[in-house]
Amino acid sequence: MNTFIPPKRTLMGPGPSDVPARVLEALARPTIGHLDPAFQGLMEEIKTLLKYAFRTENALTFPLSAPGSAGMECAFVNLLEPGDKAIICRNGVFGGRMVENVERAGAIAVVVENDWGEPVDLQMVEDALLDHPDAKLLAFVQAETSTGVMSDAETLCRLARDHDCLTVVDAVTSLGGSPLEVDKWGIDAVYSGSQKCLSCPPGLSPVSFSERALDVIRSRTEKVQSWFLDLSLVMDYWDGEGGRSYHHTAPVNAMYGLHESLLILKEEGLEAAWARHTAMHERLRDGLEEMGIEFLVAPEYRLPQLNTIKVPDHVTDEATLRKRLLEEFNLEIGAGLGALAGKVWRIGLMGHSAREENVELCLRALRRVLN
Amino acid sequence: MNTFIPPKRTLMGPGPSDVPARVLEALARPTIGHLDPAFQGLMEEIKTLLKYAFRTENALTFPLSAPGSAGMECAFVNLLEPGDKAIICRNGVFGGRMVENVERAGAIAVVVENDWGEPVDLQMVEDALLDHPDAKLLAFVQAETSTGVMSDAETLCRLARDHDCLTVVDAVTSLGGSPLEVDKWGIDAVYSGSQKCLSCPPGLSPVSFSERALDVIRSRTEKVQSWFLDLSLVMDYWDGEGGRSYHHTAPVNAMYGLHESLLILKEEGLEAAWARHTAMHERLRDGLEEMGIEFLVAPEYRLPQLNTIKVPDHVTDEATLRKRLLEEFNLEIGAGLGALAGKVWRIGLMGHSAREENVELCLRALRRVLN
Repeated sequence: MNTFIPPKRTLMGPGPSDVPARVLEALARPTIGHLDPAFQGLMEEIKTLLKYAFRTENALTFPLSAPGSAGMECAFVNLLEPGDKAIICRNGVFGGRMVENVERAGAIAVVVENDWGEPVDLQMVEDALLDHPDAKLLAFVQAETSTGVMSDAETLCRLARDHDCLTVVDAVTSLGGSPLEVDKWGIDAVYSGSQKCLSCPPGLSPVSFSERALDVIRSRTEKVQSWFLDLSLVMDYWDGEGGRSYHHTAPVNAMYGLHESLLILKEEGLEAAWARHTAMHERLRDGLEEMGIEFLVAPEYRLPQLNTIKVPDHVTDEATLRKRLLEEFNLEIGAGLGALAGKVWRIGLMGHSAREENVELCLRALRRVLN
Repeated sequence: MNTFIPPKRTLMGPGPSDVPARVLEALARPTIGHLDPAFQGLMEEIKTLLKYAFRTENALTFPLSAPGSAGMECAFVNLLEPGDKAIICRNGVFGGRMVENVERAGAIAVVVENDWGEPVDLQMVEDALLDHPDAKLLAFVQAETSTGVMSDAETLCRLARDHDCLTVVDAVTSLGGSPLEVDKWGIDAVYSGSQKCLSCPPGLSPVSFSERALDVIRSRTEKVQSWFLDLSLVMDYWDGEGGRSYHHTAPVNAMYGLHESLLILKEEGLEAAWARHTAMHERLRDGLEEMGIEFLVAPEYRLPQLNTIKVPDHVTDEATLRKRLLEEFNLEIGAGLGALAGKVWRIGLMGHSAREENVELCLRALRRVLN
């Protein structure tokens, strides 16, 4: 066995996205202790930069030391206690995973079901809120990575507040790529991933919790079932006031990378990044439509950063075509998940991958393998 | 805010340890997809290298995508179901954390308590096994990072097997630094951390589970309470047979680093690494004893890779001395934890930090600040 030298890919799947050289360089800087004063300074800067990205003043805004799926679990195990009721919107893989998390926390999931490729239906959610006035929270995926659908997070959050319900928002694929207004929309718990529109390697889950959410956590009658994800413990580590207490050892070098990627986002500006994702999506869409390729999702619900297209009818073996893209063009695009496996491709334009040269490469490569 | 340039420290605390340049370089290689065939090849190599490090043929041997504390939680939530009984040996911080994990899994912890600085008492464990024939598992920390004590893992595992009990072994600080024989000793579940004697940045937790442990997991009546740590799901991602199914997005670049650090361990040889840790410990011990400094732990139970020494009586403010070591020598050593806070220092000689130049620097710096 030898040192692993990865191939140089262009990453246009559902994440990870292309990582800029500045972020890769940051990862390789010398490791320091997780309780070093210099690292604590870095943690404060990361919190400030994440507040910018999430558009929030929430004090509890930080990156969890684990991937986005742990961020999801963190939200549910901290906010729910056994017997609580949660309204979960399921219109793809990740809504389904939310149901799993709720049930494993001993809580009851009321599922609002929509077809894959459709957004969460606002009327159905309102009906569920009316039918279940005892629901503690409403949870939904803003940007469904399995289908490429954007749901209306602003309205969903308003409905939840009107019914005195907490909100849990999956922003794994939206953060940094599409409008997300944690404070303005009144989101109570939100989690994301480092490897999508932030263009960092995978492994960290930025999260943010409102004061309302913290009050609920503080008044729990039972301990959080996960020690690792217990926010009452984790926040003592991430809160600078009164000295940090050791909880776990933070992934120091991964934090260097996240800090650099958030700096890049701040330098570009959040609105400019959103606009760039939309512009690149339009360019890709135009090229795909010229080739006669159809989108799974209606135009008004499409995610710019994740384009789910139907595999053309004449393609009998889509996996072989993806393999050719990888081998001949070093280009990764995503397969369909679950019920959409074999039927769609998912083309990511996330973060640093949302560039003209990527769009052009993807169109050129698809033209080649489809002819 | 600017790019974060960390100070260049010498890391001789309880972890992270110094990371070799080869590992840092590996971290900065281009990110590829977590389902890329090239990444799957890397995963297979990491599994093979981890089997070498753990001395096991266990098929389920892989790095969890989260720090060691998640490794601990993974062992307990998978092996225990509500109402199960577990015998937990507590002789420091991490045994205490085990009790927390057991109780949060709805199981009953029978605690075998020993003083901090003492190893786990074999007779007390045998008595507990006799008193609790219904205990499902025995768990203990092989190398207590909070005290610098080595317990007799081989005998503890034999006792457990004699009483038909599973074993869970915390090898966070022992893996790569001290003898650990997963198969020969019949360990059923073991977890470690990347940032100790493997000299990788923190963030990953190598784990291994025996067939006996897997049988217990397969015959569970309830789902594992954690979706993220559910081995029945995670193993479908790490098992190469029949194609990998997506579970979470693995921290790709961190895996590059772990692979390189395991290669370095293999090149040196496991026994040679153990011997190096012992030799460096003896050198440090001799120098410290010349200065009149005493160890907390009796010689026969001392961890070579974590030297817990008593703060000399004439030192009234030990925190200021550690601050001077950091500021004047760029040297990090560890403070005491819990009941030992303010009373001891913990000097790590882990992995790449177990070198002559580190020992010399540490002795020179301590001489300076203590005079």
